[in-house]
Amino acid sequence: MKSTSSITRVDVPARQGRAVQVGAGNLVRVSSPEGAQVGDLFAVVSADTTEHLSAAHTRGHVNRLFPHVGEQFVTTRRRPILTLVGDTSPSRHDMLIPACDPARYQQLGHPGPHASCAENLETALRGLGIEIATVPQPVNVFMDVTVNASGELVWQSSPAAPGATVTFRAELDCVVVVSACPQDLVGINGHGTGPMAIEVQG
Amino acid sequence: MKSTSSITRVDVPARQGRAVQVGAGNLVRVSSPEGAQVGDLFAVVSADTTEHLSAAHTRGHVNRLFPHVGEQFVTTRRRPILTLVGDTSPSRHDMLIPACDPARYQQLGHPGPHASCAENLETALRGLGIEIATVPQPVNVFMDVTVNASGELVWQSSPAAPGATVTFRAELDCVVVVSACPQDLVGINGHGTGPMAIEVQG
Repeated sequence: MKSTSSITRVDVPARQGRAVQVGAGNLVRVSSPEGAQVGDLFAVVSADTTEHLSAAHTRGHVNRLFPHVGEQFVTTRRRPILTLVGDTSPSRHDMLIPACDPARYQQLGHPGPHASCAENLETALRGLGIEIATVPQPVNVFMDVTVNASGELVWQSSPAAPGATVTFRAELDCVVVVSACPQDLVGINGHGTGPMAIEVQG
Repeated sequence: MKSTSSITRVDVPARQGRAVQVGAGNLVRVSSPEGAQVGDLFAVVSADTTEHLSAAHTRGHVNRLFPHVGEQFVTTRRRPILTLVGDTSPSRHDMLIPACDPARYQQLGHPGPHASCAENLETALRGLGIEIATVPQPVNVFMDVTVNASGELVWQSSPAAPGATVTFRAELDCVVVVSACPQDLVGINGHGTGPMAIEVQG
């Protein structure tokens, strides 16, 4: 028997979000083609979209601020949904900070509308007919936020090199959304705001 | 003019939760009468119960893992809902760990039903006619979880002395729920599981 596999690539334009449907066992690779671009990643269970990847439950599950390669992200019902299987970046990702949203940009003093990861998530899910009541806390890949000895958060520019990837294996059939974070008022994205890409191997 | 104020005290029995309706400007004091008891605290906006205190948005707002006295907890819409105005404990509280729930006790190997903060929240809100779609991440008062230099979480027994209090001022009309955490399989509560109390001064 020859095994067969297919790779689907979805480009995520700068400042936008895209959703991909992923089967259990598939690999999902998220990349920053130009480097230094933060992606807000969300995962929603296909069979019941009220269940989703939960940052808080994942912290409790792995007993650290962010999983190591080989460890799992779990849902609001404490079920593994993604396993972190590879990481070519400096492995500095964030799971403390919420998605940017219209209120965030308003508070930063931006006049008028501004793209946001919260709206990108809602738009991407709506394209699949999924409505959500609350924006879950994202997994912020390539976002470098550390906690200093005083418990203060230190935000630094994304250390991801061009082409950096982080790879997950899906443990449940789920919808994965990646938003190329449009944050341009706080220096988390190194080179302005760039695109991202999602590859699904199944 | 003589100002008048009233104090309402609600006892929270061990392993149970209670809800109080709080007006903007009221003080809410949560105590551990016997000491070393963790309380899972939640706050839901009265005017729109889909808006609630958000741990993640609060971390971003104060730029640290837990607010200092004088700082504010904000909602899912980034609006201040509670200000931390006093703390007679050693000020070691947690805002990283989710509420315990049936899945947690099942994974810890507990056979059969076990009280949980998630269910205590749902029961307490249901008593006021409020249904919630997702259990928010709580503010775990008197729960001592620190992050070490490797990003690992270190759980220790609650350091709260008998009678320790933490006091908040409500910034919005809201419902505050406190669950006396029934966790007895992990050593966060110092003396088994004890009661808590909520006092509202308005």
